[in-house]
Amino acid sequence: MANSSKILIIGGTGYIGRHISKASLALGHPTFLLVRESSASNPEKAKLLESFKASGAIIVNGSLEDQASLVEAIKKVDVVISAVKGPQLGDQLNIIKAIKEIGTIKRFLPSEFGNDVDRTHAVEPAKTMFANKAKIRRAIEAEGIPYTYVSSNCFAGLFLPSLGQPGLSSPPRDKAVISGDGNAKVVFVKEEDIGTFTIKAVDDPRALNKILYLRLPANTYSINDLVALWEKKIGKTLEKTYLSEEEVLKKIAESPFPVNAMLSTGHSIFVKGDQTNFEIGPDGVEASQLYPEVKYTTVEEYLGQYV
Amino acid sequence: MANSSKILIIGGTGYIGRHISKASLALGHPTFLLVRESSASNPEKAKLLESFKASGAIIVNGSLEDQASLVEAIKKVDVVISAVKGPQLGDQLNIIKAIKEIGTIKRFLPSEFGNDVDRTHAVEPAKTMFANKAKIRRAIEAEGIPYTYVSSNCFAGLFLPSLGQPGLSSPPRDKAVISGDGNAKVVFVKEEDIGTFTIKAVDDPRALNKILYLRLPANTYSINDLVALWEKKIGKTLEKTYLSEEEVLKKIAESPFPVNAMLSTGHSIFVKGDQTNFEIGPDGVEASQLYPEVKYTTVEEYLGQYV
Repeated sequence: MANSSKILIIGGTGYIGRHISKASLALGHPTFLLVRESSASNPEKAKLLESFKASGAIIVNGSLEDQASLVEAIKKVDVVISAVKGPQLGDQLNIIKAIKEIGTIKRFLPSEFGNDVDRTHAVEPAKTMFANKAKIRRAIEAEGIPYTYVSSNCFAGLFLPSLGQPGLSSPPRDKAVISGDGNAKVVFVKEEDIGTFTIKAVDDPRALNKILYLRLPANTYSINDLVALWEKKIGKTLEKTYLSEEEVLKKIAESPFPVNAMLSTGHSIFVKGDQTNFEIGPDGVEASQLYPEVKYTTVEEYLGQYV
Repeated sequence: MANSSKILIIGGTGYIGRHISKASLALGHPTFLLVRESSASNPEKAKLLESFKASGAIIVNGSLEDQASLVEAIKKVDVVISAVKGPQLGDQLNIIKAIKEIGTIKRFLPSEFGNDVDRTHAVEPAKTMFANKAKIRRAIEAEGIPYTYVSSNCFAGLFLPSLGQPGLSSPPRDKAVISGDGNAKVVFVKEEDIGTFTIKAVDDPRALNKILYLRLPANTYSINDLVALWEKKIGKTLEKTYLSEEEVLKKIAESPFPVNAMLSTGHSIFVKGDQTNFEIGPDGVEASQLYPEVKYTTVEEYLGQYV
């Protein structure tokens, strides 16, 4: 079967990794999760791992810092997906080393799941965060490892409840603060759908050595349009405050890490429009075109739950 | 003069770096700032650099990625202070390489300015963030480079306006949300004072190869005591909600990076009490004991501005 590749997921209980793990199991892949032994002491992770095991996942003990464990884990599979977090991005060089050593891996998906890191106009510290992901891309390419880079754009769960501004748990009913002029187009994708599109791509030759963009037509909105959609849903007009780019840059400069990491990522997305200000080139494919059978959750449906 | 060492500051326009730069100039050190040429395009940074230049700072063009520029810059000075942000922490290995090559640097202060990274009970991703700083410590020690590690604990500007919870610009007047039981002791230090203590230490033999802890007695509070102080100041009792450690861990596990980076740092500080749950050992010195002449801003004074 074309889609029965054995998959190892590293970071498979994390924010986005858990949805990739779920999708891998749901789509019938033999699914291996690399897990530190210490994870058992985190009740939240332990619970999640139990539910994955009940669905057939195979837990492999190990970590990015233990090269022998990494090699052993990767030997068991055909495809490796990394969903590790910011501070561990650099340690993915150990995965690349192990994949190179083993030589039989058919596809590696490094931890991306955001903007296309080769096409941004970010300021610091997002600039370096994106550059660190780009370094991993270059290392993969230098070793000739088959890859797919998943540019999934905005996590809906993080950005939609606040209409673009992380921090609120449901959309505002009185005021909206908008960075820039609010006209940049942004793509919001529900985390479950990111998991599904990611797993769809692992065995797909059309996604081999490509960037898989989740630029879903029904989920691409400017913040102005998003606020207008929300206003229509609740039958009320919000008071809008626009922050100029200079004000946004000032706030970034005056904030410590990691607050500035969030703000500078927001600047790239909402002020610069870095998710949509370029055409998809010959190095990319678009997920909803490749997999029209995936009935993804639309922004309109998503916002409906808060009305 | 003992305190006239020439100082190079890397990251000297950042959130904490700007206060180190100001203190270096104020205390009469010949002060060199390593600056990317692209910084000129950020109006906020350009303005700050102009003010530093007017106070006598010498701007050196270069970056952590340009090793030749780094070596040239470091050759000009006696002391190197790094205040680079999270995503650039790993690139400090380039500074260590340059310092080793040059061989005349009297003190290196890597980017720390938070918890003692060798003494934490953090969960991910803070765990890896602290471990990444610890790796830099180990690399410095392996090369035999003279160092001071500044453990400055909580930035007052980030944590005090919200009584421990980043996100508010002035203390709450109705409700306080408290992580854990609110009894862990936490240290709040105004950013200007962090700059001053840091510069005081660079020529001080007592701080050589030590951790400099800013464990200021007047600024060490449990969140319960801090809320009580605020309540007294405004003459009103707040409604308190306590989050159990399990609830905090659940929130961390369900949040993407970098939100989880903030939450897990908060867990280490406010739930685990990692800033004060150990005695300062022979590898450490306390800043207010070494420099009793520094009249630092107290928490009580700091909160006064919001009444």
